[in-house]
Amino acid sequence: MTRKINPFFQPVSAMDLPRYAGVPTFMRLPYLTSDDPNYAAVELGLVGVPWDGGTTNRPGARHGPRSLRDYSTMIRAGNPVSGINPFSSVNCADLGDVPPNPIDLHDSMERISTFYAGLKQNKITPMTAGGDHLIALPILRGLASDAPVGLIQFDSHTDLFDSYFGGNKYTHGTPFRRAIEEGLVDPKRMVQIGIRGTAYNIEDVEWGLDQGIRIIRIEEFFDRGAADVMAEVRGIVGTEPAYCTFDIDFIDPTFAPGTGTPEIGGPNSFQAQQVVRALEGVNLIGADLVEVSPPFDPTGGTAWLGVSIMFELMCVLSAAIRENQA
Amino acid sequence: MTRKINPFFQPVSAMDLPRYAGVPTFMRLPYLTSDDPNYAAVELGLVGVPWDGGTTNRPGARHGPRSLRDYSTMIRAGNPVSGINPFSSVNCADLGDVPPNPIDLHDSMERISTFYAGLKQNKITPMTAGGDHLIALPILRGLASDAPVGLIQFDSHTDLFDSYFGGNKYTHGTPFRRAIEEGLVDPKRMVQIGIRGTAYNIEDVEWGLDQGIRIIRIEEFFDRGAADVMAEVRGIVGTEPAYCTFDIDFIDPTFAPGTGTPEIGGPNSFQAQQVVRALEGVNLIGADLVEVSPPFDPTGGTAWLGVSIMFELMCVLSAAIRENQA
Amino acid sequence: MTRKINPFFQPVSAMDLPRYAGVPTFMRLPYLTSDDPNYAAVELGLVGVPWDGGTTNRPGARHGPRSLRDYSTMIRAGNPVSGINPFSSVNCADLGDVPPNPIDLHDSMERISTFYAGLKQNKITPMTAGGDHLIALPILRGLASDAPVGLIQFDSHTDLFDSYFGGNKYTHGTPFRRAIEEGLVDPKRMVQIGIRGTAYNIEDVEWGLDQGIRIIRIEEFFDRGAADVMAEVRGIVGTEPAYCTFDIDFIDPTFAPGTGTPEIGGPNSFQAQQVVRALEGVNLIGADLVEVSPPFDPTGGTAWLGVSIMFELMCVLSAAIRENQA
Amino acid sequence: MTRKINPFFQPVSAMDLPRYAGVPTFMRLPYLTSDDPNYAAVELGLVGVPWDGGTTNRPGARHGPRSLRDYSTMIRAGNPVSGINPFSSVNCADLGDVPPNPIDLHDSMERISTFYAGLKQNKITPMTAGGDHLIALPILRGLASDAPVGLIQFDSHTDLFDSYFGGNKYTHGTPFRRAIEEGLVDPKRMVQIGIRGTAYNIEDVEWGLDQGIRIIRIEEFFDRGAADVMAEVRGIVGTEPAYCTFDIDFIDPTFAPGTGTPEIGGPNSFQAQQVVRALEGVNLIGADLVEVSPPFDPTGGTAWLGVSIMFELMCVLSAAIRENQA
Amino acid sequence: MTRKINPFFQPVSAMDLPRYAGVPTFMRLPYLTSDDPNYAAVELGLVGVPWDGGTTNRPGARHGPRSLRDYSTMIRAGNPVSGINPFSSVNCADLGDVPPNPIDLHDSMERISTFYAGLKQNKITPMTAGGDHLIALPILRGLASDAPVGLIQFDSHTDLFDSYFGGNKYTHGTPFRRAIEEGLVDPKRMVQIGIRGTAYNIEDVEWGLDQGIRIIRIEEFFDRGAADVMAEVRGIVGTEPAYCTFDIDFIDPTFAPGTGTPEIGGPNSFQAQQVVRALEGVNLIGADLVEVSPPFDPTGGTAWLGVSIMFELMCVLSAAIRENQA
Amino acid sequence: MTRKINPFFQPVSAMDLPRYAGVPTFMRLPYLTSDDPNYAAVELGLVGVPWDGGTTNRPGARHGPRSLRDYSTMIRAGNPVSGINPFSSVNCADLGDVPPNPIDLHDSMERISTFYAGLKQNKITPMTAGGDHLIALPILRGLASDAPVGLIQFDSHTDLFDSYFGGNKYTHGTPFRRAIEEGLVDPKRMVQIGIRGTAYNIEDVEWGLDQGIRIIRIEEFFDRGAADVMAEVRGIVGTEPAYCTFDIDFIDPTFAPGTGTPEIGGPNSFQAQQVVRALEGVNLIGADLVEVSPPFDPTGGTAWLGVSIMFELMCVLSAAIRENQA
Repeated sequence: MTRKINPFFQPVSAMDLPRYAGVPTFMRLPYLTSDDPNYAAVELGLVGVPWDGGTTNRPGARHGPRSLRDYSTMIRAGNPVSGINPFSSVNCADLGDVPPNPIDLHDSMERISTFYAGLKQNKITPMTAGGDHLIALPILRGLASDAPVGLIQFDSHTDLFDSYFGGNKYTHGTPFRRAIEEGLVDPKRMVQIGIRGTAYNIEDVEWGLDQGIRIIRIEEFFDRGAADVMAEVRGIVGTEPAYCTFDIDFIDPTFAPGTGTPEIGGPNSFQAQQVVRALEGVNLIGADLVEVSPPFDPTGGTAWLGVSIMFELMCVLSAAIRENQA
Repeated sequence: MTRKINPFFQPVSAMDLPRYAGVPTFMRLPYLTSDDPNYAAVELGLVGVPWDGGTTNRPGARHGPRSLRDYSTMIRAGNPVSGINPFSSVNCADLGDVPPNPIDLHDSMERISTFYAGLKQNKITPMTAGGDHLIALPILRGLASDAPVGLIQFDSHTDLFDSYFGGNKYTHGTPFRRAIEEGLVDPKRMVQIGIRGTAYNIEDVEWGLDQGIRIIRIEEFFDRGAADVMAEVRGIVGTEPAYCTFDIDFIDPTFAPGTGTPEIGGPNSFQAQQVVRALEGVNLIGADLVEVSPPFDPTGGTAWLGVSIMFELMCVLSAAIRENQA
Repeated sequence: MTRKINPFFQPVSAMDLPRYAGVPTFMRLPYLTSDDPNYAAVELGLVGVPWDGGTTNRPGARHGPRSLRDYSTMIRAGNPVSGINPFSSVNCADLGDVPPNPIDLHDSMERISTFYAGLKQNKITPMTAGGDHLIALPILRGLASDAPVGLIQFDSHTDLFDSYFGGNKYTHGTPFRRAIEEGLVDPKRMVQIGIRGTAYNIEDVEWGLDQGIRIIRIEEFFDRGAADVMAEVRGIVGTEPAYCTFDIDFIDPTFAPGTGTPEIGGPNSFQAQQVVRALEGVNLIGADLVEVSPPFDPTGGTAWLGVSIMFELMCVLSAAIRENQA
Repeated sequence: MTRKINPFFQPVSAMDLPRYAGVPTFMRLPYLTSDDPNYAAVELGLVGVPWDGGTTNRPGARHGPRSLRDYSTMIRAGNPVSGINPFSSVNCADLGDVPPNPIDLHDSMERISTFYAGLKQNKITPMTAGGDHLIALPILRGLASDAPVGLIQFDSHTDLFDSYFGGNKYTHGTPFRRAIEEGLVDPKRMVQIGIRGTAYNIEDVEWGLDQGIRIIRIEEFFDRGAADVMAEVRGIVGTEPAYCTFDIDFIDPTFAPGTGTPEIGGPNSFQAQQVVRALEGVNLIGADLVEVSPPFDPTGGTAWLGVSIMFELMCVLSAAIRENQA
Repeated sequence: MTRKINPFFQPVSAMDLPRYAGVPTFMRLPYLTSDDPNYAAVELGLVGVPWDGGTTNRPGARHGPRSLRDYSTMIRAGNPVSGINPFSSVNCADLGDVPPNPIDLHDSMERISTFYAGLKQNKITPMTAGGDHLIALPILRGLASDAPVGLIQFDSHTDLFDSYFGGNKYTHGTPFRRAIEEGLVDPKRMVQIGIRGTAYNIEDVEWGLDQGIRIIRIEEFFDRGAADVMAEVRGIVGTEPAYCTFDIDFIDPTFAPGTGTPEIGGPNSFQAQQVVRALEGVNLIGADLVEVSPPFDPTGGTAWLGVSIMFELMCVLSAAIRENQA
Repeated sequence: MTRKINPFFQPVSAMDLPRYAGVPTFMRLPYLTSDDPNYAAVELGLVGVPWDGGTTNRPGARHGPRSLRDYSTMIRAGNPVSGINPFSSVNCADLGDVPPNPIDLHDSMERISTFYAGLKQNKITPMTAGGDHLIALPILRGLASDAPVGLIQFDSHTDLFDSYFGGNKYTHGTPFRRAIEEGLVDPKRMVQIGIRGTAYNIEDVEWGLDQGIRIIRIEEFFDRGAADVMAEVRGIVGTEPAYCTFDIDFIDPTFAPGTGTPEIGGPNSFQAQQVVRALEGVNLIGADLVEVSPPFDPTGGTAWLGVSIMFELMCVLSAAIRENQA
């Protein structure tokens, strides 16, 4: 997997500048916009989507990218478990934030899908920091316009509801129903892990099962263990292109309090690392980490956990990029 | 000003139930909906508008009414300075929250204006707890549909901008421009107190001055003092009906950190009490206290300050109600 | 288990009013006092006991009911694991708070026992939110005046001490010794789960074992697992009436920091759910969730965990009510 | 005012041990109990009364002494305004905490009055850190058993109520009514400064005025200024022995959020320093600083303000001790 | 004062990207390093010095620049009082952080002075965000190597001590004594405003007065008012080059809790704005804002106040730059 | 293991003084300095080292001892699992803090090693509260000057790096490399448990393995379980003298957020108790608990967890002392 490392795309080392110093880009990587001469060389792009317009409960995910960037400066370069160093494997860069319109849901969705269509055109694999979960819909519109992709969703909620508050079709509780309806996701290659929490009804689950989605509730996850569950997950998504969406509320809210709709009884941080590491080998075309809400995260613990998971996702994304280049 | 006190409308006393106990309605008043037999007797209605859909910066004002209700249970019955006891002067009740649609700005505005039109029809003077400042527009649509009212605005921002982010006309930075354009507010009887903060431009101020609005910047306020400024304010609004809108960011952010767009260099809490007390005698048809954002108020100090100001507003509102009944 | 659902007793849905909106009653249920015409129909009553007069260490549990009500508005209607929807199974209502006397321990205890005797008379099964653990004693005085009940206690402390600070018999460290002495609890049908923490002596444990109480320390709990332990628990309490008391300090203090006397090394939130779900089938006459101390819970995580456990308790309570009605 | 300085009674200097280091006694002074050979030499004793049994609203003042000791280690030795260095003027020591009984109000009061009677016997002037305001009653019982003293009370509440919750005579709202009734305080030589806040009734004020107490509301304080008000105060208490009781809620709650019953619209920290400095020359026999509640003071700002005021009180107390020795 | 505005150096507008979005450079300005082609055009450079190696009390100022950058994104473009828009007056840029060595005091000081000597060589006026107050010494070494400058110091401490803990000459309590000894500052053109707090001795003040420094204690400041004091200050520093150093602990710790060595009884935020605005016309060659310690600033209020003061400093700095270019 | 208990060395009981009361010494033990007549009888000494001069990332560990003392007052006397009561087994005392020099790394290290050499001379086994991890080096210099000791290190980092930031040899990332180079630790009898986190390189691990250190990564720990791992650990260190160093970042940062360099995916609090209890029988000559950083621990949960672990360490230390006396 060795190749010549491009020094331009290396993160600033704590040996040169302490981690609390400097302008906080994602992972201390160079910050690039599309008019930069180095843009064409980017393979893995970190993108923020600071928008929570789809949130029906507690807001604040619009502040997610800023806080995740801040804590990302404590991430170092290599993964001691898998041995992957994403920064020396592929060219990584911070591509900034999609400019959302905080008071116009549809304008924001269009801005997001346009941005991601641009990434796709430039063959940049995106690692996104949300934002609420509705952002996954316009991201998929940008990335999966050609053919439906597989989907691996870590989450405590299915986000498969039909509508809200008298017919509104676009909230953070509906993105994957829309994505399936729009042909962006293949429900037969879709799996949800960690589902739990009280419920008004089971309309979402019934619709999902009808489509063929595999829904793994938290009880099953704890019974079988991460390794066994993730082996099944890899089988379901297979070798075709797939996208991974990681809602921070998958993790127990004691570990990740900074989120809008917490559900107790979830996995711990080690199990969160385990499930992402188990994605090595999956043909990932992108990933996101959503629903980190800094106003509910006074100590920053959720942001630190979130960027630690983003780093794990970058490792498996960089492996997938190299695999596809091979 | 004496009259028979209706025991139904009295707040629960701390002599019967400690202040930290019980279901937290506004000021420990009875909670009524419009189908309640006592509804017709309400004269001063406390209403929450838990919505921040007009917010372009930091969110969270949707949580304002809940937090204000919580801290309002520490308010007692009488105002020792003015001698007014609003609860024995007029029938007060908690009328609950307007149900907003968190993902649809225009639907929410319609719900709000309908609710307030209903209050007007029932001759209930509203004391509103926001919510972001955009709620003032649909409130005024509900209350001032007949004729433009005077407006007293305590605020660090003019909220007189025309549009945002490429043409959006409805944000918490635009409500009073819209209200004037729609004929809900008479700009000649409008005054803003406390304006300050850095600015992209002075388009808002210039437009406001052109309409005849009196804008009193914070420097003038500190130079002249509260009493002198408020005497002028009373002169401007005169004896015709007027509305008072109190943005918590009028007060210095050290006193009121829990708000979305703080501006340093503002008045302290005593000055905030002084300016409201000086409204005694104004023909008020309603008032609001907006932009309390609990996620940025970890100690609750902003909510406590906010309800303390709401109580002062209730005192002058109840005096106005009695005056109009005289 | 179907029967006609009484719409009056249904919680407000987030589809009608967002969860952060409205006056926060327990679980968004109607709030009733004993003079309400619907009172007679209540089967499961949620009651707050905002009192911490028995606390010898860090105070604040008096604020528990308020905070638990606040977070309870994020609970939805059904339990996806057991399939129980307590709100459609039995008539649930918020019955308000018992008015305690914050400066008189014995007066407060009398007020509490009188309140619960009234519930018993009206055949209302109580789900209580404390308050410190001493409240369990007057609750049991109200509920178990006829015959001793079984007791299932989730706790890190035995609360079986004899006295404190020179002879005081009534503190939150003594309620169950008193309850046994007074014949309210049958020690042979009593079990404590989760005991741990440093100790001055083992007087409490020795006395308890002498009475025949089954004490399951945390080491045994972790060794055997929740399912095995709870099977034994069900065997001990049998089919006769039993009461469940859940001290939030049963759970590890990282999950539940907002409590007065935390002990490290406890169960996580999933295990807390497991043990309560395993109470299905027990003949429960009531339950409480105590020792949530909001001043030590700045992020509200303990309150959210606490109401999530209260919901689980309501599920098994509602099943017991239906069973007894069968 | 020079005399030989006793090195034993000097605080640890930051030049020898950084302020954040070491066991936190009050002001970094030696900690002594009554059996210590140096006890007889103590002239000014710092005492904690960690008790909030008289609190009818939010608790936590029991934690006051611990937190005040912690922040007191940032106090240095001299007062640059008055030139007084209390530590070189008189022998100061930390005398520890009175052991209160957290579940027995009357036992606690007896323990406190016994402790202070002992101090009086040993001619130790006490500077007390509370605790809630009820502690002032047993302190005065200990100190003023011979003859009524003058009283200077900085407070937002009069604490002159008769009873609470059906006849209870001893709460933190009643100590000075009891003290006058018991002949411990001469109401003609008593003055209250800073009174404000909403009120259920004015029974307290009327009773106080009837006794001859001078009550200076906050509006009068702001109108006249600290210097003018304090000149009157000194005139009222005259040259006979007087006690000073400083409730931290005298200060605006933005400056002192960590207290149980905050009232907005109070003085700032500089004004708090001014009023205490103006006590120089008063014949003080003791002072207290009460109602600091650390659970509501997450940043410690109230504790820091509180010990800064305690230092100012120590300066005027040490001057009074020297004056009485002259 | 008009000139052609360079669009490259304009801050990102909230009309294009909401304030909570994007990589947080100072004031949303472009981030440049010295090898950037636009570097030569910079006139006013914002620099962070994330270092607290001189701190003898509570640490954390090393985190200051990161937090100040974060909150600076809420600053808009123009000063509505003075009418100055620094961004359209001179070319402003974020020049990043000086890389300090967190474990080597002397290495860090050398790195800082080298960095600022480079700025001087490039004729860039620095606006610095600290860091503890010791950074002012190496900054002055870099800027004032040719001739001593005047110094305006807003602070609660003189920082004129000789040594600490047995002879250490370099701490945040000594920088200005060293600067005078090294001939970097002319003590006759030096003034300190806001001095207060308890003291071990007055060695610092005596030494300072002997050098001819004008020391304005806080009592004098409050007595005379900001305008009068600042008129004197302008007279003292005259028209020769001067440097302004602003320790955030000049401001009252209720307004600025996030600092290592707070002293109560200080100015409020409006007075802080007033004193900086009164520097217009002073021949400033640079300024700093130091001692913001984010670990003690959980709500970010100190950072927001700090960047608001930095903006005021930028306004007077940009006026001085334009004046010197005229 | 019985012997005559010395009442002087017993902690204050909560039966005599509530836990929140009194001057907070470690574990409520007597505080002694070396000139105290009881000093010679001390067998187990609790020592604070309030110093974070070796910290290259987030500071604050200098505040560790103060906060750990505060929370230690909630520890009671006996260990209910092992049955050990350290206070009745050996004479325990709080020996205060080593006075560090906050601005001179080498002076501080010398002060620490001198202090511990004194303890060794007096045959006092130290239980240390840090401070950052660099303090372990001067502690070992004081304790292991005669012969290398075994080392059991609970940590998420190896702290085996060679240098930092251009050659600095002494940081909290290097102590154990220095300790081995200096012959203080026998690498063949050294084991590290819990290693994890991203890495710049594996230089540290490679060097450590070359020396013969046993490094047990967190994945292996979770796979095998605490009991199996600790059996191996006991085998490695054998029966010769050994030292235990416990970095709080060994534990998952959700349980221990108050630390400078957190790494997700660690053990929970029960596992932390298990590993320390498994040290019973090891020939321990001392132990430390380091890297608790109170500024990042707003709720005190880390301090409470830390002192709970300190108590467990005291239990195994006291057993080792008794064993060596046998």
